[in-house]
Amino acid sequence: MASTPALRTSGTSSPIRIADLTSPIDVAEYLFTRLRQIGVKSIHGLPGDYNLVALDYIPKLGLKWVGNVNELNAGYAADGYARIKGMSAIVTTFGVGELSCVNAIAGAYSEHVPIVHIVGMPSTSSQKDGMLLHHTLGNGNFNVFADMNKEINCAIAKLNDPREAAALIDDTLQKCWIQSRPVYITLPTDMIQKKIEGERLKTPIDLAFPTNDLARENYVVDVVLKYLHAAKNPIILVDACAIRHRVLEEVHDLIEKTNLPVFVTPMGKGAVNETHPSYGGVYAGSGSQADVQKRVESSDLILTIGAIKSDFNTAGFSYKTSQLNTIDFHSTHTTVRYSEYPGVSMRGVLRKVINQVDLKQLSVAAGPQVENEVAENEDKSNIITQKWIWPAVGQKLLKENDIVITETGTANFGIWETKFPAGVTAISQVLWGSIGYSVGALQGACLAARDAGMDRRTILFVGDGSFQLTVQEISTMIRLGLKPIIFVICNDGFTIERFIHGMDAEYNDIQEWKYKDVVKTFGAKEGTYRTYTIKTKEEVNTLFANPEFNSADVLQFVEIYIPKKDAPRGLVLTAEAAERRNAGA
Amino acid sequence: MASTPALRTSGTSSPIRIADLTSPIDVAEYLFTRLRQIGVKSIHGLPGDYNLVALDYIPKLGLKWVGNVNELNAGYAADGYARIKGMSAIVTTFGVGELSCVNAIAGAYSEHVPIVHIVGMPSTSSQKDGMLLHHTLGNGNFNVFADMNKEINCAIAKLNDPREAAALIDDTLQKCWIQSRPVYITLPTDMIQKKIEGERLKTPIDLAFPTNDLARENYVVDVVLKYLHAAKNPIILVDACAIRHRVLEEVHDLIEKTNLPVFVTPMGKGAVNETHPSYGGVYAGSGSQADVQKRVESSDLILTIGAIKSDFNTAGFSYKTSQLNTIDFHSTHTTVRYSEYPGVSMRGVLRKVINQVDLKQLSVAAGPQVENEVAENEDKSNIITQKWIWPAVGQKLLKENDIVITETGTANFGIWETKFPAGVTAISQVLWGSIGYSVGALQGACLAARDAGMDRRTILFVGDGSFQLTVQEISTMIRLGLKPIIFVICNDGFTIERFIHGMDAEYNDIQEWKYKDVVKTFGAKEGTYRTYTIKTKEEVNTLFANPEFNSADVLQFVEIYIPKKDAPRGLVLTAEAAERRNAGA
Repeated sequence: MASTPALRTSGTSSPIRIADLTSPIDVAEYLFTRLRQIGVKSIHGLPGDYNLVALDYIPKLGLKWVGNVNELNAGYAADGYARIKGMSAIVTTFGVGELSCVNAIAGAYSEHVPIVHIVGMPSTSSQKDGMLLHHTLGNGNFNVFADMNKEINCAIAKLNDPREAAALIDDTLQKCWIQSRPVYITLPTDMIQKKIEGERLKTPIDLAFPTNDLARENYVVDVVLKYLHAAKNPIILVDACAIRHRVLEEVHDLIEKTNLPVFVTPMGKGAVNETHPSYGGVYAGSGSQADVQKRVESSDLILTIGAIKSDFNTAGFSYKTSQLNTIDFHSTHTTVRYSEYPGVSMRGVLRKVINQVDLKQLSVAAGPQVENEVAENEDKSNIITQKWIWPAVGQKLLKENDIVITETGTANFGIWETKFPAGVTAISQVLWGSIGYSVGALQGACLAARDAGMDRRTILFVGDGSFQLTVQEISTMIRLGLKPIIFVICNDGFTIERFIHGMDAEYNDIQEWKYKDVVKTFGAKEGTYRTYTIKTKEEVNTLFANPEFNSADVLQFVEIYIPKKDAPRGLVLTAEAAERRNAGA
Repeated sequence: MASTPALRTSGTSSPIRIADLTSPIDVAEYLFTRLRQIGVKSIHGLPGDYNLVALDYIPKLGLKWVGNVNELNAGYAADGYARIKGMSAIVTTFGVGELSCVNAIAGAYSEHVPIVHIVGMPSTSSQKDGMLLHHTLGNGNFNVFADMNKEINCAIAKLNDPREAAALIDDTLQKCWIQSRPVYITLPTDMIQKKIEGERLKTPIDLAFPTNDLARENYVVDVVLKYLHAAKNPIILVDACAIRHRVLEEVHDLIEKTNLPVFVTPMGKGAVNETHPSYGGVYAGSGSQADVQKRVESSDLILTIGAIKSDFNTAGFSYKTSQLNTIDFHSTHTTVRYSEYPGVSMRGVLRKVINQVDLKQLSVAAGPQVENEVAENEDKSNIITQKWIWPAVGQKLLKENDIVITETGTANFGIWETKFPAGVTAISQVLWGSIGYSVGALQGACLAARDAGMDRRTILFVGDGSFQLTVQEISTMIRLGLKPIIFVICNDGFTIERFIHGMDAEYNDIQEWKYKDVVKTFGAKEGTYRTYTIKTKEEVNTLFANPEFNSADVLQFVEIYIPKKDAPRGLVLTAEAAERRNAGA
């Protein structure tokens, strides 16, 4: 066996010998197989010369290569895919590719979305020699871009040594899933085909969430129950991290068991069944409907689940609730009034609270009932208004299990006024708030639903200004044969910015496009798409009632015209608060 | 005067009192005035709520707000603007905006392009309080994004204190100009309108390049002259940093004075007058024309000026020259054979060499003569080939003082075969090589020429794959009324990647667009643009001879069809070398 080729590595200890491997497998095959095992069926990204050989493995392993139009869009798409399918992956090339999607990765970090970012790197020998390669800064430093990623990923793995590769991959993917945040993996060109042990693939990566220390957990459960049983009018407030840290089952069981009034924050939209009798609406401080605000703020015990109390999620920090009346359940800790319990994660605590709550001791005071207020927001004009359209979307357009994506802008605030049918998933980026996100996210979400074999409509609402940033991802949807419904809100520019500052400023204006012509220009074949231009309430009603439109067997693109200085209530309030804070007040 | 409002700062020492200021001026006005003084007439970027108030100053100061369609494109445009106008500025918003253009900034760092990147930040009080604001990672860390910028900018300035603002701005802009690399300036919302001393604006920022230590410089000049006078067939090789570090006047004078044969590298294209009798062509190692390679590599003394010997600039490190026969002139040092002279910059040395060279002692052996080889590359087919089109561009299309932009891909390598008329400026990104760059750069370059009052045509050659990444910047060109000539090379995908790996791989394919329809879709009005579809050599000849086309009084868009597996000679060689290196060979 002395003739077995020794695979040299950049390390100093002994190399791997193929003869020592039971099932030799290439590093890239190992990595992509792990992703497939976790449920990633499509890989986002763009080709680049440092990743091309790795991309060869994708079709061979039965995975689908997406081939996005640019890396930022690919990152947004990976984010949307992960929010539907649980996790996603994107492949870019060193420097130019990876840096183009860094905004999307930071957004995923901010919003707790698990994306595996694989970066094709120059070979370890080129790195070691500090070669003056293209896609470098020309200074021989091959670590700059990985270093830039440190604060926006929950793990960084450099696959520079075949002996460590499998363990490093497993550990990194586990962190991605458990922490629900992006990870960054570098794959040098000369590592792609290095042989490692494939037997390890027979044992799935352990994705079980860590359990709490039993004694501490029991203590916290007792404290929670004590306050819960004592409270006169407790409520539940569900927020983003309940979705992202995967406790929706616990949330649903808690609602079913207790029948306590339940509210969601803007980032919590879609977390609960809004047709449930206990559902009371969206709470966003002074941005809430009056009865919602009154009910939440007069509650003597608020159980918040997965809260992210950011400015845009609270209508500008306008909560008038007291921490003395609050119990916060988080993925990393629990807080009861001012008592903090680090390391006591919500999953275990919620399950025990559900099991142990004594319904006889529980005061259930009914909350407000929320409906889509379409008639209430009619006016004499036929012009489409923000206050009319969002309840109308809830009442007339949405169906069970739809996926609804809203862009940062009027849509993200308008959707507060939309009561969802059961099973609707909402996607938005309320904390990170990067305009253009939603177009990429639409591609990813739509593909994820198809990959999951789910017959779900995927519907986007995006403003014209934001749409322009990432327009080319429509091309990917066409190429993949996806069939989303796209509403472009034509309101002449950046309305959200106008309400913060510069209502009539030139910098909030945009070039007027023929938006719906984008579909044909990007190569959609006749018969594979439909477009609509909607300028009146009547046309909205006709469209929403159109069975052909609702069947969505092709890509559909709707221009919907709303006046440029019209904004949802929540946006107006939040923008005012933002302008005050920007002034340093 | 006790009633004069004291402007509190986040610092601990005494605040600025307006009464103490001779000419009170707002921080933002100071910053933009300094940019205007340096020659920046248009400011690139996008609005975002942390920069809106700052943008108000732009029209007030007689500057033009560009208003790009996304930040990456804006960054590329700023890069193109700086290459024509000397320096540029881009304004983005915290987090989401700035991160979207980080690839463009890294590219400018890599390629030595001076861009001032101004980032609108949350107020200093919000930062101090670690508020949970939108566009943050949600962890109260407001320094993450500035930290990510450290290695890709030559200076970072945080304008957190009005007392330091003016000095910090002046110092940072000076560094940007002198080092010819990007700088990063944060402008918190509450600093924009803080008053500082305006008198300082009467003294321009000192942009003079530092001079060398006289004794060291004289020593180096003597050494250079000794080798130059002794050489039998010396030549000059001009590269990128001669352009970027602004020694073209010295280069031209050196050529005029000595009549030595002069060659350019791919990144040095456009640095010298290619109609000068001394001009010998493009040297890129084995990627050169045979007579060029022979002449350069047989020279006993090569004077390289501003060399960047990167892989794509040398056809895969294929120089067969010896350091024993080389003198390298750089902006930061000079190297004579193996003797290094740190701190001895080329500017002073070159000027003295020009003044002191003894022509009687100089051996001037004629170099090869280069012409556009159109007839030589004809074939019997009417199909447009890469080897035919690039000389044809030089012979039939280009005019004096044109600006020619080529994308990373076939265009960047094809242009090696184009001999320019006098005064042509070439823009490309050979080292950084980010595809999509050229479309943004076109907008910036075209605007810069207009801002400079120069009547120069701006002509882009971009492949269809690359074009898709940044397509929306065409919209900005339309809105600004720019009149570039855009050639989209329709060759079905990423030809450069095909030649590196995956000739027929799906990942190198793209969605087929109706490219020229983009112009109308993005809102160009009838009569303000013309489009063409060109599929044969004959149609190329007709187009290039068309006076209406050549007058370029409107935006013109040309689809030019070339077979997908056809690539310029230089690309084929460079790609082969890249694939070998990727394999770790």
